[in-house]
Amino acid sequence: MAAPRIRLGMVGGGRGAFIGAVHRIASRIDDKYELVAGALSSNPENAKASADDLLIAPERSYASYEEMFNAEAAREDGIEAVAIVTPNHMHFPVAKAALAAGINVICDKPVTRTLEEALELEQLVNNSDCFFALTHNYSGYPLVRYAREMVERGDLGNIRLVQVEYPQEWLTEAQGDDNKQASWRTDPARSGAGGCLGDIGTHAFQLARFISGQKVSSVCADLTAFVPGRQVDDNVHVMMRFENGAKGMLWTSQVAPGCENGLKIRIYGDKAGLEWAQETPNELWLTPLFGHHQRITRRDDNIDSDIAARGIRIPQGHPEGYLEGFATVYSDIAEVLQAKRDGKTVDIQRWIPGIETGVEGLKFISAVIASSEADSRWTEL
Amino acid sequence: MAAPRIRLGMVGGGRGAFIGAVHRIASRIDDKYELVAGALSSNPENAKASADDLLIAPERSYASYEEMFNAEAAREDGIEAVAIVTPNHMHFPVAKAALAAGINVICDKPVTRTLEEALELEQLVNNSDCFFALTHNYSGYPLVRYAREMVERGDLGNIRLVQVEYPQEWLTEAQGDDNKQASWRTDPARSGAGGCLGDIGTHAFQLARFISGQKVSSVCADLTAFVPGRQVDDNVHVMMRFENGAKGMLWTSQVAPGCENGLKIRIYGDKAGLEWAQETPNELWLTPLFGHHQRITRRDDNIDSDIAARGIRIPQGHPEGYLEGFATVYSDIAEVLQAKRDGKTVDIQRWIPGIETGVEGLKFISAVIASSEADSRWTEL
Amino acid sequence: MAAPRIRLGMVGGGRGAFIGAVHRIASRIDDKYELVAGALSSNPENAKASADDLLIAPERSYASYEEMFNAEAAREDGIEAVAIVTPNHMHFPVAKAALAAGINVICDKPVTRTLEEALELEQLVNNSDCFFALTHNYSGYPLVRYAREMVERGDLGNIRLVQVEYPQEWLTEAQGDDNKQASWRTDPARSGAGGCLGDIGTHAFQLARFISGQKVSSVCADLTAFVPGRQVDDNVHVMMRFENGAKGMLWTSQVAPGCENGLKIRIYGDKAGLEWAQETPNELWLTPLFGHHQRITRRDDNIDSDIAARGIRIPQGHPEGYLEGFATVYSDIAEVLQAKRDGKTVDIQRWIPGIETGVEGLKFISAVIASSEADSRWTEL
Amino acid sequence: MAAPRIRLGMVGGGRGAFIGAVHRIASRIDDKYELVAGALSSNPENAKASADDLLIAPERSYASYEEMFNAEAAREDGIEAVAIVTPNHMHFPVAKAALAAGINVICDKPVTRTLEEALELEQLVNNSDCFFALTHNYSGYPLVRYAREMVERGDLGNIRLVQVEYPQEWLTEAQGDDNKQASWRTDPARSGAGGCLGDIGTHAFQLARFISGQKVSSVCADLTAFVPGRQVDDNVHVMMRFENGAKGMLWTSQVAPGCENGLKIRIYGDKAGLEWAQETPNELWLTPLFGHHQRITRRDDNIDSDIAARGIRIPQGHPEGYLEGFATVYSDIAEVLQAKRDGKTVDIQRWIPGIETGVEGLKFISAVIASSEADSRWTEL
Repeated sequence: MAAPRIRLGMVGGGRGAFIGAVHRIASRIDDKYELVAGALSSNPENAKASADDLLIAPERSYASYEEMFNAEAAREDGIEAVAIVTPNHMHFPVAKAALAAGINVICDKPVTRTLEEALELEQLVNNSDCFFALTHNYSGYPLVRYAREMVERGDLGNIRLVQVEYPQEWLTEAQGDDNKQASWRTDPARSGAGGCLGDIGTHAFQLARFISGQKVSSVCADLTAFVPGRQVDDNVHVMMRFENGAKGMLWTSQVAPGCENGLKIRIYGDKAGLEWAQETPNELWLTPLFGHHQRITRRDDNIDSDIAARGIRIPQGHPEGYLEGFATVYSDIAEVLQAKRDGKTVDIQRWIPGIETGVEGLKFISAVIASSEADSRWTEL
Repeated sequence: MAAPRIRLGMVGGGRGAFIGAVHRIASRIDDKYELVAGALSSNPENAKASADDLLIAPERSYASYEEMFNAEAAREDGIEAVAIVTPNHMHFPVAKAALAAGINVICDKPVTRTLEEALELEQLVNNSDCFFALTHNYSGYPLVRYAREMVERGDLGNIRLVQVEYPQEWLTEAQGDDNKQASWRTDPARSGAGGCLGDIGTHAFQLARFISGQKVSSVCADLTAFVPGRQVDDNVHVMMRFENGAKGMLWTSQVAPGCENGLKIRIYGDKAGLEWAQETPNELWLTPLFGHHQRITRRDDNIDSDIAARGIRIPQGHPEGYLEGFATVYSDIAEVLQAKRDGKTVDIQRWIPGIETGVEGLKFISAVIASSEADSRWTEL
Repeated sequence: MAAPRIRLGMVGGGRGAFIGAVHRIASRIDDKYELVAGALSSNPENAKASADDLLIAPERSYASYEEMFNAEAAREDGIEAVAIVTPNHMHFPVAKAALAAGINVICDKPVTRTLEEALELEQLVNNSDCFFALTHNYSGYPLVRYAREMVERGDLGNIRLVQVEYPQEWLTEAQGDDNKQASWRTDPARSGAGGCLGDIGTHAFQLARFISGQKVSSVCADLTAFVPGRQVDDNVHVMMRFENGAKGMLWTSQVAPGCENGLKIRIYGDKAGLEWAQETPNELWLTPLFGHHQRITRRDDNIDSDIAARGIRIPQGHPEGYLEGFATVYSDIAEVLQAKRDGKTVDIQRWIPGIETGVEGLKFISAVIASSEADSRWTEL
Repeated sequence: MAAPRIRLGMVGGGRGAFIGAVHRIASRIDDKYELVAGALSSNPENAKASADDLLIAPERSYASYEEMFNAEAAREDGIEAVAIVTPNHMHFPVAKAALAAGINVICDKPVTRTLEEALELEQLVNNSDCFFALTHNYSGYPLVRYAREMVERGDLGNIRLVQVEYPQEWLTEAQGDDNKQASWRTDPARSGAGGCLGDIGTHAFQLARFISGQKVSSVCADLTAFVPGRQVDDNVHVMMRFENGAKGMLWTSQVAPGCENGLKIRIYGDKAGLEWAQETPNELWLTPLFGHHQRITRRDDNIDSDIAARGIRIPQGHPEGYLEGFATVYSDIAEVLQAKRDGKTVDIQRWIPGIETGVEGLKFISAVIASSEADSRWTEL
């Protein structure tokens, strides 16, 4: 018999939310979870209606996360993990409470609203027995993992350049309060000091770190809020220097009309370059120096990489996308949690972004803001 | 409370199978089904092991489909629908038995092995109260539906040309018996007289029919088995004439190295053309006559089409793929079945391929084979 | 000192013509020709005005090609070659007269209006000392030549499939007489029996022959004139069988809205496939069987092929296009003609389409028309 | 009779040079020039051999530019314009001498080696009767001009973001002295203080300025020489601020393996974005805000823009490339020079980059170097 499904709770993700539904689909695709409890909204009516939508038993729909953790910790069949899909400012208190209740955490990014919170949370995680995963879902794409292996293997030579970008269009105009997504993301009290920076800049930063294996040492940044009245940045320009001497640029924007979800990375070593774009995730370019041939690697169920292959469900040419990449992260986490039931650990753990990735992300956010406020002075992370 | 999930059984789809797993993921994505019973393999050990893999209760894992239909029909909580994911030759007997037991049918394509069976099954469906769906999953892609609306609205003018193709590479070489997928697909006793023709040619044909709205009246075909010893075609060349005077070509192959799952369609009217390819399903081209501008429609959650929008789960730029398109077909079927519980019908039904699509597919197969055997004589459907 | 430029005359190509200007630019790009004489139009005023436009000395602007050949043959500095860029029906008489005058011929395609003329011209060429080149310019693209070398070298294995297409849009609607290009191309008296077939179908056929190295043995064709009142085909559907057992399809159309100049070829052997498209001529795909890597060869001045490299003027990433490909054919011809001055021959000759290519093209046209008229009966070439 | 061809001389461009041959082809494509004189190399033997290659009369092949200007100025049929295609450090003295001799100048970029020289040259040009053109050839692409018109017309709304890049690979490794191109381009005495910055950074800067219509006010830059021992930058990272409040990034590199000639620009206003890339020059994207449709404009001989249309020689789908764009700049200059013979001016003049563009380019180079040397301090132009 396959291992029983992970019993999952959720905080946030009620009607009108976006990322909660994504987490739920991701948890279902490989059938390793069942969603059995939720504190889906801070609004009790919404919480109840949302639980009904999801066929969660009424007695396991809770009015608050504190209540959920208390009740579930007391049940024999209580939740083993909680997915935190609230606005950013709630990540910290909810994660803290979950850890205190001995519940494993699957947290959306950025990990917290401030670097101080992130550092405190790092302590709490390290002092707990819980597993903590941060859903930097783009790391779940098979060809992103393949790219990381290419770099690790030295296919690119010594890394010199990292060019990463992530433009979107959806905040090009001022948003009314009726746009729930826009509303909290442009409110520093809920999103943190970084707007676009925290929302998607952290994804771009993490992807660069993940594939290149290189650490950013300092940044030179220029943040802008183009839309009148906006309290957080909506465009981010950053030059980067890496510990190994590499350099790079990061551009992310939410005011770039026509850009959909344009996360794209290019890395160049002294032997070859690579290129991958989230909107065409099933192909990865390798461009060797002075080779008049370029190579496109396709997501392929027979691909020559174990780590890539385990995230591939269907044959080549049958495109998998965003939800499947997210599902792979969820399934990796399930494997860790199922092993943890038996006191075991599994190798896949190193591929799952955790609290240290969250801390690095907040360091990046802090340094970028500091640099921009100091007229783009180079600022260490 | 949301409507309870559809209780689903499955015939076929045990370990080593391909399409069964796809159906299961597709059924889970929108959480409208629960898989509660199965006759997953004609091999009892495989059936049991497969049921264990899927966390199906041992008492609802059956040794045969007959047994399953009997037992489940007798349960209050018995299955409401069965997914038939066996090799082609079993579609007919299993579907027939399901209908006899009053169980709704979700059947993979081609609907049967012969046209005679398809016509008989059509009678059985029409004389039953059951809903019968044929999983021509490519119709589930939002932009395929958008394309159909474009044609219906007259954006292309009068349709003149339909060019459709579906090349793959995976049977380029002779396959040993250890390749389970290749084994039954190249055995006429199990796949039907058409090899590549039945396996993917029917998809290409159905897509052309679905988007263009035009009926093929006759075909002129040249079938080939390039691999020595192969008993069924592995390459299909067809010229087509349509009832409205349009003409077209259909090419499908399983011996085209480097072709992955290259289903692609182009339709031209006297005002504009359209183009869509399965491997880049999130974009659809409209090319107006003498317009130096071409238009790309992107899968976009705010798209101006209800039927397309209902198959879109996540925002623009977050790619959805094959599994999501398949899931949309499953969710549409669930909506029909949930309404049927209350004796209702729903509009979405017209977008779901059914038995008549299956019959058309077999007519196409028969006519193509007849034409090819008659030195490519034009042959009516 | 470089060899003196080839002294060139032109028949056709006056004001309002299209392909004449292309030939002139092609002849200038590598500076191996000077245009010194012309019979540019059958209309004397147009002929004179056109010669003035081109800075041709008035005394070398002739009222007819006969006059030109007589006068130029008598000059010490008379033309060494003539470019024939008239409507199709004039190719034969002009070429015949040029050969009779001992003038080398650079002729646009199709070589003549009928197969009989082509065969007669073949005799005349073979019995003359003149060089005869047919401007199948697409053979001039470096990557087309690279592709041919790939096939010759066996990179694809045994060739099984040849899929070629060439859709355009420009005759989608009925054309008035004021459209000079459309006017003669849709008049069988001037264009020959094939419309679209002769105009661009011959290009598609020649490209397939050139790259694949395979000869078509028979065709099964369906010609259509979609536009009411049109006297020649505007859409061509052909299935092909090759002498080596390969099969293929050829589609060409001039009623496909949004299609610009969509010549594209795909060839599959039992080891790999290749793909090249005229609208993106600077890249060539090689797709190996079961390779999850695909390879794109870029036009690159350091490319590993002499024959490709000699058609490349500028570094990689600096796109060359249609005119450069055409210019390469012209420069290859110039090399032959400059060697011929000294009684020498040069290897490049085998890469230049000549009269035998023209004859093959007319055989193809004839067989396609015969097949279509016989309800698509397979017809030998 | 068409106007006689412009009599052209050339300084530089002998055997082994690159850009001289490009200028010559560009001048020939539309047949508005004849190259009649040259000082093709500072090496007399190379100069003579090169002149012979080009069929320049021996008496008009000169040992130095001074000699050429003197001799040609004294001839009735002397050169009307000189193309300066030397290494950068010679642009200034040669242009100065040409102006002194009353000869129009067609100069490659960057206009001079230093800003001081550029400013002095500006005075000289303004005080002369000569026409001075700077061959920023990328402005000659039809769709670049179309893009500029789109911005001018307000199709994008208020411009907010300008992202431009120009990566190449060819200096990824240290170059020996035998690489003539690399040799002078990496020698500050000949190329100027900027390496990659001057060579291609100026192109990227000019393209951004040309299309956006916006002036850069200040830059924040990080220059790198990745290759050990290299005396000039080989990678350029710049953040930009524009006078109207827009911001941007510019990346250019010559150490990016696999990058060929990757000039690409994206501009975003508050209504729409545009995108154009030099390697696919025949298409231009317009991406409207919240439009699920994107628009691709194709180079099309019937395009709705006079300025674009005049640079288009052949129909849609027949790709034109780098040489044709360059030729358009040459032909525009010819039109100015032919009008100037009669004391007239022509509108096209505003589309031709001149000395003021050269000065802006040097201001950019100077500011970028100053910023980089000051630890990326924001520096005004």
